[in-house]
Amino acid sequence: MNHLLSIEDLDRHAIERICDRAASFAEAQERDIKKVPALRGRTVLNLFYEASTRTRSSFELAAKRLSADVVSFVASGSSVEKGESLKDTVLTLSAHRPDAIVIRCPWAGAPALLPRWTDAAIVNAGDGKHEHPTQALLDVYTLRRRLGSLSGANIWIVGDVLHSRVARSNILAFRAMGAKVTLAGPPTLMPRDVQEAFGVEVRTTLDDLREADVVYALRMQHERMQEAYVPSLREYASVYQIDGRRLGPRQLLMHPGPVNRGVELSGDVVDSPQSLILEQVAAGVVVRMAVLYEVLASARTGEPAPEPQTA
Amino acid sequence: MNHLLSIEDLDRHAIERICDRAASFAEAQERDIKKVPALRGRTVLNLFYEASTRTRSSFELAAKRLSADVVSFVASGSSVEKGESLKDTVLTLSAHRPDAIVIRCPWAGAPALLPRWTDAAIVNAGDGKHEHPTQALLDVYTLRRRLGSLSGANIWIVGDVLHSRVARSNILAFRAMGAKVTLAGPPTLMPRDVQEAFGVEVRTTLDDLREADVVYALRMQHERMQEAYVPSLREYASVYQIDGRRLGPRQLLMHPGPVNRGVELSGDVVDSPQSLILEQVAAGVVVRMAVLYEVLASARTGEPAPEPQTA
Amino acid sequence: MNHLLSIEDLDRHAIERICDRAASFAEAQERDIKKVPALRGRTVLNLFYEASTRTRSSFELAAKRLSADVVSFVASGSSVEKGESLKDTVLTLSAHRPDAIVIRCPWAGAPALLPRWTDAAIVNAGDGKHEHPTQALLDVYTLRRRLGSLSGANIWIVGDVLHSRVARSNILAFRAMGAKVTLAGPPTLMPRDVQEAFGVEVRTTLDDLREADVVYALRMQHERMQEAYVPSLREYASVYQIDGRRLGPRQLLMHPGPVNRGVELSGDVVDSPQSLILEQVAAGVVVRMAVLYEVLASARTGEPAPEPQTA
Repeated sequence: MNHLLSIEDLDRHAIERICDRAASFAEAQERDIKKVPALRGRTVLNLFYEASTRTRSSFELAAKRLSADVVSFVASGSSVEKGESLKDTVLTLSAHRPDAIVIRCPWAGAPALLPRWTDAAIVNAGDGKHEHPTQALLDVYTLRRRLGSLSGANIWIVGDVLHSRVARSNILAFRAMGAKVTLAGPPTLMPRDVQEAFGVEVRTTLDDLREADVVYALRMQHERMQEAYVPSLREYASVYQIDGRRLGPRQLLMHPGPVNRGVELSGDVVDSPQSLILEQVAAGVVVRMAVLYEVLASARTGEPAPEPQTA
Repeated sequence: MNHLLSIEDLDRHAIERICDRAASFAEAQERDIKKVPALRGRTVLNLFYEASTRTRSSFELAAKRLSADVVSFVASGSSVEKGESLKDTVLTLSAHRPDAIVIRCPWAGAPALLPRWTDAAIVNAGDGKHEHPTQALLDVYTLRRRLGSLSGANIWIVGDVLHSRVARSNILAFRAMGAKVTLAGPPTLMPRDVQEAFGVEVRTTLDDLREADVVYALRMQHERMQEAYVPSLREYASVYQIDGRRLGPRQLLMHPGPVNRGVELSGDVVDSPQSLILEQVAAGVVVRMAVLYEVLASARTGEPAPEPQTA
Repeated sequence: MNHLLSIEDLDRHAIERICDRAASFAEAQERDIKKVPALRGRTVLNLFYEASTRTRSSFELAAKRLSADVVSFVASGSSVEKGESLKDTVLTLSAHRPDAIVIRCPWAGAPALLPRWTDAAIVNAGDGKHEHPTQALLDVYTLRRRLGSLSGANIWIVGDVLHSRVARSNILAFRAMGAKVTLAGPPTLMPRDVQEAFGVEVRTTLDDLREADVVYALRMQHERMQEAYVPSLREYASVYQIDGRRLGPRQLLMHPGPVNRGVELSGDVVDSPQSLILEQVAAGVVVRMAVLYEVLASARTGEPAPEPQTA
């Protein structure tokens, strides 16, 4: 694995290898010294065209806990604003000799172009409505820890599937791991032909939500109201909010964050013991450590990577 | 000491211990290699809801000189702007397993809530009009170096006491160290009942300023003019500015910075040998090193912390 | 060399020493571990009054590859915005005991004032229309690698010389290295008396461009259009754009970046093998490493600096 561009590039075995690696890093996170020397002297460059303190700081922390150096290049205030093309920006940054480039951008498919212009390993941290593969990996990691295996698990993804790169990556990853995926949400927020394209079931109500082992709620973005996809947030919440009445006591709850309390989720389920939301966040650091390790320390040599050691 | 939330939590002994530790770090600052390995592998997270490059870079430098990793999370451009609550932000960041969270925010008392949501050590870097405890500690440290002891010293705090968290923390710290504190400023900028509440004297003129051993001027914020607390900056300056005429040759001058030259201080006194202002800034790094060391390396073990060694 | 304020302070010997040092660092950049321990424990402070992610990240990376700690202080959002003077800002930052301050600012000559207020080594990263000495050094380094020596080389600098600190520094550096410099551009964008002041030739057309061994195109800034220095970008491009028709096959092409494709350069020449543009960017990191090493590890001791070793 030289890059992480899309979940489509990963089979079940590859996903499991990353999760196993993440689990080995998770042990180090229990110690006072959480840092391992695995990527000492390497440089990870964050190239963020969208504001995302959360994902950016998770990657930054992952790189630092591997002892790598991190340089962040945020598009605002940079030469990008002076009209530089993505290609010229990448060619320029690549001349700085980063070992990996973590890119988030609003253009679907753009990360896949980068290997033409640079030798650095590319990690897609979210590209438009296309994919968000590290989110899907951390979600699989979180569920595996709780369920042992995703095989046969019934996972409902609820909400604005149409605009969600998280949904897209997670459908691919959950299915690769043997889960059954059902999508639920307003018809206006469901992609056409998604049933055929992805082999998932689609529902427009939550009437059968209790079938699910896992309920994965998507973030409802305020701008969708203005775009008239749904009449109002209150209207949306009354039909699609996951609350204590709809969620059964043995169902697990997930959400990519940040949560809109009172919209897609009620406050009580967010804070309930069924909620895996904070475990997902915690998984974010170790899974991103595993991904960076995979593309930098492991893939490049052609031989199995040595086990990481504590600093 | 697991957290630093308020000066009220510290007695004289605790303040002296922090100052002694800071003094030991100050020796390392005289060397070419200013870094010590005391907090190698630990993560300090800066959570800043208010722009403050000065305080933030002082904490950042303190953490780096202790060999800790630093991740900064500035509210602007983050999920906080998307309406996330303080609780959810802290729960999320806490899942990243920081060892300490340094928080600055406009809400008085908010830092004291954080230990409910995280195991990280909390350091208050300024909360609304409530407190700014590291500022008070560095001011005590600076004065101790100059005076030996604050016992019996006569300290005047001059200016906008009403809006000043610095004033509040310093009144507590100076009094804990045995100093006599007098507040001076326009009646409109003096809190009601401050005399009784804090055991300080209050003056509305600088007529007796020469009584002071130390004159601590507060920053006069421009927005106070618009809010009509004082008629104009010029008017304020004519009555309350500390200048070469008002300041006696043996009095020491302090200010938390940044100084408005020509408003609360005249330029000549800022640059005079009586001014401790730059010593205060320098103290900022070593005192913050001592605070981070105290809450991370020292308090957690229950036994006396080992002496820091040079990297 | 205690500071790098202006190319005027450097003779040919000093420029060559920096380039030789950069070449030795360039070897380390070929390795997996690109970091050297030369400045371990030192602090480099970036003080940027102008947004420049490119130059800032180049300095940041240079410092990190030398194992120094970096703290960035960007004027926006800082106490500078609250009206603090340059002097007070530098006095304050200097109290944090940085080993070097890298300053970029819109005020010509301001970096030369800093040694009055701080013991830190000062590196000018661009000051108004005055100078950009590290750009000139990396350009000399890049050309030396390609040409062996600049002696007798015929270098044309084309475009908006009037507003360009890059042009000013490069004229000085190229001439110090024995090159012959010709300036070409619209008369409205050419400083008066530049011919006499700098000992260069001036042309207002590109008719004789083929005389050049090296064509150095300057960035054409959009705001010059509004200020009516040239009728339109299209008009400018038709007369002064370096394109495949104007550029001979044995001429080398340089540009400080970021390029306006279709304005000062056509896309085909940017991507041609004659273009040194990405080599310039790559040189940026190693030359800045050499400069930081020079002012920190080398100059301070008074004896020749030891050779840097790999981490």
